[in-house]
Amino acid sequence: MASGVRSPSEIGRWDEEVDVLVVGLGAAGAAAALEAARAGAETLVLERAAGGGGTSAMSGGVLYLGGGTALQKACGFDDDPEEMFKYLMASCGESPDETKMRLYCEGNVAHYDWLVEQGVPFKPVFYHGVSGEPPTDDGLVWSGSERAHPFRDIAVPAPRGHVPQMEHQAGPILMQKLVGAVEASDARIAANHRCVALVREPEPNGSVVGAVADTFGEERSIRARRGVVLATGGFINDDAMIAAHQPAVRRCSFRVGAEGDDGSGIRLGVACGAATLHMDAASISLPVTQPWGLKRGVLVNAQGQRFINEDAYYGRLGEWALFHQGGRAWLVVDDAVFEKPDYPRELVAVGETPAELERELGLPAGSLDSTLALYNRAAERGEDPVFHKGPDYVVPLVKPPFGAFDCTTEGSLYAAFTLGGLATDADGRVLDPEGTPIPGLFGAGRATSGLAVGGYSSGLSLGDGTFFGRRAGRCAAGSRP
Amino acid sequence: MASGVRSPSEIGRWDEEVDVLVVGLGAAGAAAALEAARAGAETLVLERAAGGGGTSAMSGGVLYLGGGTALQKACGFDDDPEEMFKYLMASCGESPDETKMRLYCEGNVAHYDWLVEQGVPFKPVFYHGVSGEPPTDDGLVWSGSERAHPFRDIAVPAPRGHVPQMEHQAGPILMQKLVGAVEASDARIAANHRCVALVREPEPNGSVVGAVADTFGEERSIRARRGVVLATGGFINDDAMIAAHQPAVRRCSFRVGAEGDDGSGIRLGVACGAATLHMDAASISLPVTQPWGLKRGVLVNAQGQRFINEDAYYGRLGEWALFHQGGRAWLVVDDAVFEKPDYPRELVAVGETPAELERELGLPAGSLDSTLALYNRAAERGEDPVFHKGPDYVVPLVKPPFGAFDCTTEGSLYAAFTLGGLATDADGRVLDPEGTPIPGLFGAGRATSGLAVGGYSSGLSLGDGTFFGRRAGRCAAGSRP
Repeated sequence: MASGVRSPSEIGRWDEEVDVLVVGLGAAGAAAALEAARAGAETLVLERAAGGGGTSAMSGGVLYLGGGTALQKACGFDDDPEEMFKYLMASCGESPDETKMRLYCEGNVAHYDWLVEQGVPFKPVFYHGVSGEPPTDDGLVWSGSERAHPFRDIAVPAPRGHVPQMEHQAGPILMQKLVGAVEASDARIAANHRCVALVREPEPNGSVVGAVADTFGEERSIRARRGVVLATGGFINDDAMIAAHQPAVRRCSFRVGAEGDDGSGIRLGVACGAATLHMDAASISLPVTQPWGLKRGVLVNAQGQRFINEDAYYGRLGEWALFHQGGRAWLVVDDAVFEKPDYPRELVAVGETPAELERELGLPAGSLDSTLALYNRAAERGEDPVFHKGPDYVVPLVKPPFGAFDCTTEGSLYAAFTLGGLATDADGRVLDPEGTPIPGLFGAGRATSGLAVGGYSSGLSLGDGTFFGRRAGRCAAGSRP
Repeated sequence: MASGVRSPSEIGRWDEEVDVLVVGLGAAGAAAALEAARAGAETLVLERAAGGGGTSAMSGGVLYLGGGTALQKACGFDDDPEEMFKYLMASCGESPDETKMRLYCEGNVAHYDWLVEQGVPFKPVFYHGVSGEPPTDDGLVWSGSERAHPFRDIAVPAPRGHVPQMEHQAGPILMQKLVGAVEASDARIAANHRCVALVREPEPNGSVVGAVADTFGEERSIRARRGVVLATGGFINDDAMIAAHQPAVRRCSFRVGAEGDDGSGIRLGVACGAATLHMDAASISLPVTQPWGLKRGVLVNAQGQRFINEDAYYGRLGEWALFHQGGRAWLVVDDAVFEKPDYPRELVAVGETPAELERELGLPAGSLDSTLALYNRAAERGEDPVFHKGPDYVVPLVKPPFGAFDCTTEGSLYAAFTLGGLATDADGRVLDPEGTPIPGLFGAGRATSGLAVGGYSSGLSLGDGTFFGRRAGRCAAGSRP
């Protein structure tokens, strides 16, 4: 028997029948359920945990939205869907989905209003501080590399991190409101139900017509007359999938994901013949330049070379450090630039000269010395011709002692989650390898390949999960049996 | 209707019945067919082209084999399966399949003998020249990074490129012999047959029981009582799959693959619920250090920095230049090191000083100057503490004029093919996402994820394709209906 897929003949009598079955009650599943129910479909949401929320509830709660949302306007920022589109197409990895990106950017103003309608609160105050996930309850924040090279020359920057109103971490309030909206809707929620198989008609029909869920060791079969929406999250917590698709990620010290982020929904879809996309893509955060003054330091690799403009967003720093430098990196500062990092990290080496620091770090003889000499020469003029760090952060590093913060995977926080997953069209239909929709099967959130396939800006997963989750819910509800 | 998979009820009467159906007659398919037929299975090979050979016949024909083969011994080289294993586990990317690697290294001596038994000729002469694909008809060659950092300190180096006896390009003789052996066996070949669908029983059985082939516009159904072996090659010639899985590869000027390398077999497997592995992995060759004297130059990126030891194999240079430097690289030489490259390439800049060369190339001010100063200082002592190039190739670059060979994707040959594909076990059984074999479905060669998932050494694909192709053929033949 193939794992994860059954035929209707194996089911016999269904234990339950609905129109739309949503699997997973994180942000994407909640959005899908709300829209399916409002479109008049009898909707049931399965959640394997005891309650809704998933990884979304554990997150910072930031949604990457723009194009001139009411919140951006209230905070005094202009934005334009076209500028947002240009930034995202340039920054989100090598081959983001242009069709989805266009829809997303053009639909963001309305999507923000929808979130507010669901009761998600946003305080119309811009956060002037340093993090993509502010400690205050302010509503708008910089959460990407918009003002850093090369993006500042590609698109007009605007802050687009939309943060629900809650101090420190906004994921809980976001999900409290979205799950609350689902509870208040006609959709029903079945907690402690883990989907273990999809039910699919034999070829030539091949439609997904339901699912089997395990609840406290007992199997229940649920017919879905119109469709099943997989919103089960990513696969950061499945060691075998990580080894197969993103082996470098195993070295990251922190995996951002609820227990349910074990790729189960991706595997269920694949067992039904679905294609996957960008399974090697991951968001890797290396929060080393907080407070922002630390951007005046230089990040060097195991060869004592710089490798990125240090003012890039920490989602970008982490990806470059892990995937291109093997997770071997140090942030070098002098006494003038030194300050206590927000995320505690070791000052692993100190030296009176760059050469001494180099020896302490075990870097190749002369390498760091050469890097700093080149950097300092241009920095005297406030310039960084090699990596184009913004002039605000370019100062010569000349005041002893010199120090190096540990930014290696061994000694530093690398926060990772997956970005690849099931292939879907812009309406959330799951696609087979020829690009043909698998009838009755839909997907949203990190069970599917995301808008960002690299170069992460915070809030893109909650953003695309809710945006395309809504579309998947509507499309499933509109499917006729 | 889902693409690429049908149920037996759609077929009705089979046009033909065999025990084992092999799809694709490259090296992997030939090996599978030979072993299946010899195990007593009635075997048919479908080949979409007018004749066998596929990409294998277009290749250099090198097989990466070792552990003390008769050819290695005849050429006076010692080797050991354990040293070969250590080299391959260290060099073949981040997460190669250890079980398969172990089997491969331990089985290589016998596998070489098997190739000889099929009539593949190897001249017992070691080629002293510079290429992994020699222009002579010599039989043994260095075809990897065995003698380069860090591998020289990890495993005892040995040349392992086994080249069938033919001048310039040995792929044709390899495939002439293997296809000839298939023709002489009890296996039959159906050319001009393109597999368009697999036939699969409904759940809970889920067995693959045959295939549908298109021949001159007509469909023929073929029952496979014991199994279908997908040996259809990789996907370098499918733009959509490349965009989805390895977008950077689109910038490579040369795609190594017959027309049939369009991923069709991978998609057929996925449509049947197969898992894929390492779809982002690719072999990227940048043949810039031929003649070998050019290894005395330094490769720099768009920041004027070195990024690899230049004596690494060109399969490794290409991967580093493309995936980690965005395909922006130049080989810098001085007048003493300059010689005419084997692969013609432009000297895109010349200068009397490093600073002048830097300006000509448009590199950041001071960057190349700084890199060369650091390099030359240690090179005076024959050392390269930064990237550990072997001392044979370390000389100061000080004699004007200085020149730079174009190694960018725009101006240089980057030869690419894919390394990821269907997930299989060591017997070639295709696996679903839970790691369970899909009954009746087998795979080998570049339709499956290879031994190397990065850091390519020449000959690994023909090596693992024939080795695991044989195992898949035997396993399929041994399956009972």
